[in-house]
Amino acid sequence: MEVEFYQWLKANVRQSDQVLLGIGDDAAILAVGSDTGMVVTTDTLTDGVDFLVDEASPQAIGHKALGVNLSDLAALAAKPQAAVVSLVLPREGNKALSALELAIGIYEGLLPLAKEFDVAIAGGDTNTWDGPLVISVTAIGKTTTNGPLIRSGARAGDAILVTGKLGGSILGKHLAVQPRCLEALLLNERYDLHAGIDISDGLSLDVSRLAEASGCGVALDLKLVPIAEAAIKRSARSGRDAIDHALSDGEDFELILAAPPNSAAQILADQPTEVGITQVGHCVAEPGLWQTHNDELKPLKPRGYLH
Amino acid sequence: MEVEFYQWLKANVRQSDQVLLGIGDDAAILAVGSDTGMVVTTDTLTDGVDFLVDEASPQAIGHKALGVNLSDLAALAAKPQAAVVSLVLPREGNKALSALELAIGIYEGLLPLAKEFDVAIAGGDTNTWDGPLVISVTAIGKTTTNGPLIRSGARAGDAILVTGKLGGSILGKHLAVQPRCLEALLLNERYDLHAGIDISDGLSLDVSRLAEASGCGVALDLKLVPIAEAAIKRSARSGRDAIDHALSDGEDFELILAAPPNSAAQILADQPTEVGITQVGHCVAEPGLWQTHNDELKPLKPRGYLH
Repeated sequence: MEVEFYQWLKANVRQSDQVLLGIGDDAAILAVGSDTGMVVTTDTLTDGVDFLVDEASPQAIGHKALGVNLSDLAALAAKPQAAVVSLVLPREGNKALSALELAIGIYEGLLPLAKEFDVAIAGGDTNTWDGPLVISVTAIGKTTTNGPLIRSGARAGDAILVTGKLGGSILGKHLAVQPRCLEALLLNERYDLHAGIDISDGLSLDVSRLAEASGCGVALDLKLVPIAEAAIKRSARSGRDAIDHALSDGEDFELILAAPPNSAAQILADQPTEVGITQVGHCVAEPGLWQTHNDELKPLKPRGYLH
Repeated sequence: MEVEFYQWLKANVRQSDQVLLGIGDDAAILAVGSDTGMVVTTDTLTDGVDFLVDEASPQAIGHKALGVNLSDLAALAAKPQAAVVSLVLPREGNKALSALELAIGIYEGLLPLAKEFDVAIAGGDTNTWDGPLVISVTAIGKTTTNGPLIRSGARAGDAILVTGKLGGSILGKHLAVQPRCLEALLLNERYDLHAGIDISDGLSLDVSRLAEASGCGVALDLKLVPIAEAAIKRSARSGRDAIDHALSDGEDFELILAAPPNSAAQILADQPTEVGITQVGHCVAEPGLWQTHNDELKPLKPRGYLH
């Protein structure tokens, strides 16, 4: 239903000159009347969907709740500034912890991440109810003088790069999100980049969104996709190929970047970030998602997590 | 548990020079490096606590979700600018409507309010799950050149003013919130005001918070408290005095303002807003909440909605 609702939203939410980039990207950019834009993003996590309150620690849940929002800021190469946190706590807590202990545990998880990325926790809202745990975080950042990185800037011929390794995040990385904020800021400062998105729903699905927003296509070379150890482990249990997990598992919270060939070659040679950067394909004129196969393009079906 | 958690937060969330006003007021103020501050507030509404999804229309729920956030901006005399909206929808909808119909209905309620107050809906997040409906809205505004109105500015001798009439909001006003944004902006522009807060949990409780934040006390003259028709109706059914409802019902979403005596007298004489403004008491040096009684002060117990 998310796709239909999104279409309804696009048709019914009016444009505003206060919003430089609105619904449809990882985050919105607001005009603030200075030389930088203010970037806002919000993500809500719920028990049973994004975590299991009786299995994950509240610290891990808190870390994830802030982390996924910082990953959205990273997708726009925005510098994190502040966040507000809304908690809806089960009145009686979970199996092991009271509501108060859950709330404090969640903050014990998100505060170190906030400190690491210099995010001020500016406020929030705390509620209790008879339902499961819900955490909603809104993060605010600033674009830098190099401007934001948006989904729609890719062009045919651009290289498609990814940070890190992909797949199998359900084995742990989906909770222990490492938002690529510093990497995005550094790459956006030093190199010419055309577009960016973070991998929340799977490489193949998210790269398709970048291509669609940019009015081009993307051809992936499946041999080049960096496969995480966790994807290989998952593959052993699932019976599916590891590359399949890397393409579609989602919640990698790595970055997909489109960069012109010269710039991409420089990035790949420099490897300027701690996390590795890999070229996985390139943009093509023909819309859609493709895989390169013996110098030909074959259609590739985008798969991943649809809300 | 909210009080204990708030104490933990105050002790554990580090200060930041990026946050001019942090946890503890109706909204936070962020430094944006220009002549105005950016004001951020977030409120999450849940089925069964803030509305009943099978009784209220989704339009009314959407209106309330944005309205309570705008009321927080009004409390700081901030000009609304944008909002992001997170929905967590019951997968199967409610008794009458599908998840998609609920989502659209919620927006049909909040979009007209957004238009009325020139609030750009900048983005959001939409999820479905097996739990009840949750709506989390974060609203962003700007302080004006007259500065924000905060809780802590009241001084002994100030008059305590309220907008509108109080009590009985459960009969309808709690959904049909009329955020006092324009009133707050106009009053803050034309008159000298010292402090402000909105009534979300009840006059007696919220005015006590203003007093405590300001390091003074407040004496209410119960004869002066403007009682809503709805409070009288509620009184007939509850057997409690109507003034009791006006003092403690909560969700009036009216403003409490502290103003120096001359300024208050001018406001009361001018009545510059469509909604009436009434003096209900004054600030005193002795901390706590009091009622004036034959020129003496008697303690008054703050009562209202504690989360």
